[in-house]
Amino acid sequence: MTGSGRRVLALSGGVGGARLAKGLADVLPAGALTVAVNVADDFVHLGLAISPDLDTVMYTLADVVNAETGWGRKDESWTFMAALEQLGGECWFRLGDADLAVHVERTRRLALGEKLGAITASFCRRLGVTSEVLPVSDDKVATMVATPEGELAFQDYFVRYRCEPETLGFRFLGAEAARLNPRLLAALDDPALDVVVIGPSNPFVSIGPMLAIPGLSDGLMRCRAPVIAVSPIIGGRAVKGPAAKMMRERGIEPSPLAIAGEYGSLLDGLVIDEIDRAEAERIRGPRIRVTETLMRGENERRRLAQDVLAFAAELPR
Amino acid sequence: MTGSGRRVLALSGGVGGARLAKGLADVLPAGALTVAVNVADDFVHLGLAISPDLDTVMYTLADVVNAETGWGRKDESWTFMAALEQLGGECWFRLGDADLAVHVERTRRLALGEKLGAITASFCRRLGVTSEVLPVSDDKVATMVATPEGELAFQDYFVRYRCEPETLGFRFLGAEAARLNPRLLAALDDPALDVVVIGPSNPFVSIGPMLAIPGLSDGLMRCRAPVIAVSPIIGGRAVKGPAAKMMRERGIEPSPLAIAGEYGSLLDGLVIDEIDRAEAERIRGPRIRVTETLMRGENERRRLAQDVLAFAAELPR
Repeated sequence: MTGSGRRVLALSGGVGGARLAKGLADVLPAGALTVAVNVADDFVHLGLAISPDLDTVMYTLADVVNAETGWGRKDESWTFMAALEQLGGECWFRLGDADLAVHVERTRRLALGEKLGAITASFCRRLGVTSEVLPVSDDKVATMVATPEGELAFQDYFVRYRCEPETLGFRFLGAEAARLNPRLLAALDDPALDVVVIGPSNPFVSIGPMLAIPGLSDGLMRCRAPVIAVSPIIGGRAVKGPAAKMMRERGIEPSPLAIAGEYGSLLDGLVIDEIDRAEAERIRGPRIRVTETLMRGENERRRLAQDVLAFAAELPR
Repeated sequence: MTGSGRRVLALSGGVGGARLAKGLADVLPAGALTVAVNVADDFVHLGLAISPDLDTVMYTLADVVNAETGWGRKDESWTFMAALEQLGGECWFRLGDADLAVHVERTRRLALGEKLGAITASFCRRLGVTSEVLPVSDDKVATMVATPEGELAFQDYFVRYRCEPETLGFRFLGAEAARLNPRLLAALDDPALDVVVIGPSNPFVSIGPMLAIPGLSDGLMRCRAPVIAVSPIIGGRAVKGPAAKMMRERGIEPSPLAIAGEYGSLLDGLVIDEIDRAEAERIRGPRIRVTETLMRGENERRRLAQDVLAFAAELPR
């Protein structure tokens, strides 16, 4: 799996996907990993272009992430936020001082016409990230969350209202017109591609909007490498975020079975947690690998990454 | 002078003018002082609208200024700048983390169509400033510095090149079309106005661009209150900034006499330092008050403010 020239592609939302990507980056040779990241959480706040998932992946791979929260930077200071509050500014979305540099510099470069992908690549280089981090598209895609009180922009739902509103459905504004990142297409069609790993991310609002961009589902179906998802649901709960709640709101019992149902025929393999071992035989379609999937630290994410790569090697091409 | 209902108008650039304004604010009743501030140093940096003189005046009046430098905020942190440097961003203009909140919030509100004056008033209110702080205009004015190597934007001259290039002259882009802040016009025409104080600011690049806006010179000539300047030149040197160097580059000996020459018939009075006492008799035109003009701390700026107000009371209307 990790021989020279072999390549791995990961699809990621925020914290869970980022942690698995870091595990993969740690066990693979430098440069073997490409991570395609959701951009439908991106929004403009305080006039700044914020890309939460991209930044979480970048910070995690660069080892500058806040390990407690899984997002934001370690050794962060909050002077800006305190001063903004004093001025009466909007403070529901917390921006640390170091984190802010990324948003200010990205906004400046976007305004000059630079592409999100090029800016991300430049930031990653400066932060010493050797994996390739790709926004799934350079175009704007925006997740909208339908609730009984009306439609909410994603960060309003996610941060401002702390995922409390009931979700009735999702729209991905701009997805149909968005152009898939050409480097992602190239990665999918690379004959050296060994496996595509869909991280333990939210299938509805992290991976869903990526799959809504024309070309990605087709590319995954077409590519000769196996496509493996790691279930974000462990013992009926999401490790982080509202995936389990969203399932219940759809009338679906949160489980790896529901994850398999969500991805359908895209999947060749599904990695589920030991705690869900009994579910394995109920899942039709993908091959199942049962292992420890909770990533609390460096060792656990590396071990999971190795398990995923070993599983991929066993799957038929 | 300080009876209820009486009003004082100060014109200010950065540090020197801000310190005198703070002295005036401290010895006058709350609300008696209006400070009109140069905006021709304003520029867009990293995509953010930065108003150095306005912020220096606001921070000084709010008692949150860095007393060492005279600009920026006290108890500042610099995490943003370190992170920006890591990303390869432009770092020649140093923005502290708390300071940044002002620029981000101002930029956001300007983009929504709010006026600079209204934004400044809102910030001052939040920071507990009881004096009225007015940008001399809501319109864009930009000082351009002619040098032997070509014309420089002001902050390039001032910060990036540390005032090292020889100055051949100045242009104030936008000044002729700019509209004087209507509240400044109202202050000039207020029958309760007791005195106009031109702070110890640079006559060429702080007060000059203000006077280049149609209506201010006329208003100063017309207003019944005496107009008093405090010399920024003490013993042949500027306390801060390039005023003395600019004079020498014009072939003028830096002195209070040169300040009187620069303001000409606008002035009813000029306050000069003890060290320049011998110059008093060479100055034709304005009445002269000789006193200690160096403001190293709170007591000195209050005493100077009191001297200026006492001097004004002696001048004919």
